[in-house]
Amino acid sequence: MTSNQLDRLRVVLVAARNPLNIGAAARAMSNFGISHLRVVNPYKAAFREARSAVGASAILARAEEFETVAEAVADCTLVVGTTAVRHRELQHPLRRLEYGTRLIRKQLGSSRVALLFGSEKFGLSNAALSHCHWLMRIPTCEENISMNLGQAVAVCLYELVRDAKAARPSEKIRRASSANLERITTTLLEAMRASGYLDRRPIADVEERIRRLVRRLSLPADDTTAWLGILRQIVWKLRSGKTSAAG
Amino acid sequence: MTSNQLDRLRVVLVAARNPLNIGAAARAMSNFGISHLRVVNPYKAAFREARSAVGASAILARAEEFETVAEAVADCTLVVGTTAVRHRELQHPLRRLEYGTRLIRKQLGSSRVALLFGSEKFGLSNAALSHCHWLMRIPTCEENISMNLGQAVAVCLYELVRDAKAARPSEKIRRASSANLERITTTLLEAMRASGYLDRRPIADVEERIRRLVRRLSLPADDTTAWLGILRQIVWKLRSGKTSAAG
Repeated sequence: MTSNQLDRLRVVLVAARNPLNIGAAARAMSNFGISHLRVVNPYKAAFREARSAVGASAILARAEEFETVAEAVADCTLVVGTTAVRHRELQHPLRRLEYGTRLIRKQLGSSRVALLFGSEKFGLSNAALSHCHWLMRIPTCEENISMNLGQAVAVCLYELVRDAKAARPSEKIRRASSANLERITTTLLEAMRASGYLDRRPIADVEERIRRLVRRLSLPADDTTAWLGILRQIVWKLRSGKTSAAG
Repeated sequence: MTSNQLDRLRVVLVAARNPLNIGAAARAMSNFGISHLRVVNPYKAAFREARSAVGASAILARAEEFETVAEAVADCTLVVGTTAVRHRELQHPLRRLEYGTRLIRKQLGSSRVALLFGSEKFGLSNAALSHCHWLMRIPTCEENISMNLGQAVAVCLYELVRDAKAARPSEKIRRASSANLERITTTLLEAMRASGYLDRRPIADVEERIRRLVRRLSLPADDTTAWLGILRQIVWKLRSGKTSAAG
């Protein structure tokens, strides 16, 4: 997402009651480049504590406080609630996180979006949900669908900023050239001969086999010199006849 | 992922020192269907406290404890370390989470994979990193790259189990049929006429305009009856001439 898009998102915590979770939500926002936190009717003591915590981020310091959900989302054109619930008579369309975030990203291209999280204990109330255009759920297991608030915020924001293109390899590791693989193969064969390995275990088509063995390592280019050095030293030692064991 | 794949993953916490974070890691595992937790050399008191916490999950109860990273990953064919660090002279290939998890999923198809998380304060030591085949980083902001341990575990496991296919609409909302949209259009026009709206603000091509206006609502099929009922009641009231205001 562009920084303009990120800047249009409002994370809204409704009736959060645990200062650690409010702090954790702010930390996840900071990790993923989201700046605007709004809190609706938080437990006053919890919010004061979160705000005054040592190292409380700039996000908490600048958080806006509202009495009602209506006021907190008034300037947003899309309001999305998060929920763990699936099958109770939800009055709203329910979308999986993977798809919901796609719609949110699109909307953020032109206007503000509010993403609502409920209290740790009860989630979003029906009154709060009624302000939402639709709901979004994180694809958790049936056996334990309910996530910790700070972790839920982290996962939702990660999915918003993740880059589908990054799922393809980008940080390619440069592999050793064929010329260097052949040098390593040759030196390894020398070491095998010099060590007596091939006399004790004769192998048919030994060169081809060892050549394939070395190719299957997918050896990084940057490691070529180290491997060649090690093998050459071994060959030198073997040829010099002064193995420490044989003395 | 299949349950067989999930069952082959080992989440390994190395030198974790905060019982809340150990508990949070276990909770995220439970949310995303991962059962096998291993802890290496945890601060004893922290691990005892996490394990004995009220509601500590079955995952913590069954967690395996190891003295060294080598022992904790011995039965795994792929060992992946997580890190926030980017530019220090990393001795390992570094992959973004989106791509790294793809490789992990593939490997989990046939054998065990260990996913390592370091301590909250120092991350993974160089000694621990040396057991890894490669490293993975969560795409956090340059301004604050370091994530809370519990949140990092949640985001990594979410990315592992997320379903790329789910990013396309699946939970389609059935839209109102054209026949019903036309009924609503007609009734709305009746209400507009009966209310005197059209006399005060004459509109050219009013039928076509209102037809398009209604189509742009993308009205859910299930709401048709409610909308028609409301509009018909309004029309009835308007026609009966007994508006409460006019008395």
